Amino acid sequence: MPGKIAILGGSGPEGSGLAYRWAKAGLEIIIGSRDAARAQEAAAQLRAKVGAAPKVDGADNAAAVAQAEIVVLTIPFAGAAALLKQLKSAWKPGQIVIDTTVPLAATIGGAATRVLGVWQGSAAEQTRELVPKEIPVVAALQNLGAELLAGEAPVDCDVLVCSDDEKAKQAAMELVHKIPGARALNGGKLENSRIVESITALLVGLNIRYKVHSAGIRFTGLPLTS
Amino acid sequence: MPGKIAILGGSGPEGSGLAYRWAKAGLEIIIGSRDAARAQEAAAQLRAKVGAAPKVDGADNAAAVAQAEIVVLTIPFAGAAALLKQLKSAWKPGQIVIDTTVPLAATIGGAATRVLGVWQGSAAEQTRELVPKEIPVVAALQNLGAELLAGEAPVDCDVLVCSDDEKAKQAAMELVHKIPGARALNGGKLENSRIVESITALLVGLNIRYKVHSAGIRFTGLPLTS
Repeated sequence: MPGKIAILGGSGPEGSGLAYRWAKAGLEIIIGSRDAARAQEAAAQLRAKVGAAPKVDGADNAAAVAQAEIVVLTIPFAGAAALLKQLKSAWKPGQIVIDTTVPLAATIGGAATRVLGVWQGSAAEQTRELVPKEIPVVAALQNLGAELLAGEAPVDCDVLVCSDDEKAKQAAMELVHKIPGARALNGGKLENSRIVESITALLVGLNIRYKVHSAGIRFTGLPLTS
Repeated sequence: MPGKIAILGGSGPEGSGLAYRWAKAGLEIIIGSRDAARAQEAAAQLRAKVGAAPKVDGADNAAAVAQAEIVVLTIPFAGAAALLKQLKSAWKPGQIVIDTTVPLAATIGGAATRVLGVWQGSAAEQTRELVPKEIPVVAALQNLGAELLAGEAPVDCDVLVCSDDEKAKQAAMELVHKIPGARALNGGKLENSRIVESITALLVGLNIRYKVHSAGIRFTGLPLTS
């Protein structure tokens, strides 16, 4: 069982969707937000939605990181670099970061069907540059839509998990498998997040053209590893 | 029923796989190659493999284009620009081009799990620049592996079809549906080929990591359109 999971930006749609699925699976969650009060409010809503006795709390982002074993980034790409710079001294050895962010052009007023060119190659590689090198960074979960996560049905999606740290990758794959229906796939090195992130823009386009809300991706021709 | 289909680079693995599936579906195929004799040899092999009375012929690339209604590019990316420059005067109104090429870094001695940055954005957008503007360009079929196409089983894959010309896109989608198991999806504008082409590199990586040969892609959460 993984330790506490801080979800930075966890009051937003993607973060609260992940928090919901993981809290339902019995994991311990800390919703992180710029504003501690907002995080606590989101945590209270989540506790009510999950029922039973979910271990869900809220804190400002830095306090959330201080308590967590796994830190999941679900903030909009536009705010990611600034937040990570603020958090520079918050990290502790043994933590891992899972980056779910996508540099959609919507971030700068463009289309959510296009991605920006990020100097480092991808949002996750930018994160890699802004987090101490002792803390492994994993890119994952970009392609799971917020509406799917907020729902009750198993998701019908594969999740490509990319990292240069095999142990961290394994931990992230275990977390993915806590989401009913999700199959974690070894996506290779962190640099492959360039491709995986762009798939989110493609899914947004499919949602628009096919008038749906939850287009997802599956890979075929692989041995089952779910 | 579409008219004659010229498959440039049709003696290679991807091209001959497509030719095989389409010839089996009763379509009229011209294998194009730099060398007419090689094209005719590939056509003869294909006729023997398909059996019945397949309409498969071979010609040098320019002669193949001259006869065709639909021209499919399956040449390696490294040779695409030079070939299209040679073919500049070969085009006739009413033809459409379907570009299946991917700018894998393998083209310049790098890894087949990475894509090159193409100035125009993608291989298909480079093709768009090198073909007369009256001839519509469609990007499609990049993610169907050659081994899958050479086999007999229905492919378990979706094919994203991207173009700025809706009529040409429709024609390409119909061709995709001639391949058993393939579902054509509206991939939006030609520029989306940037993402779709890069998915091929991701599939190559999955093939390597999972020790398979035919990883493919399906999209979930969409209305069935096969």
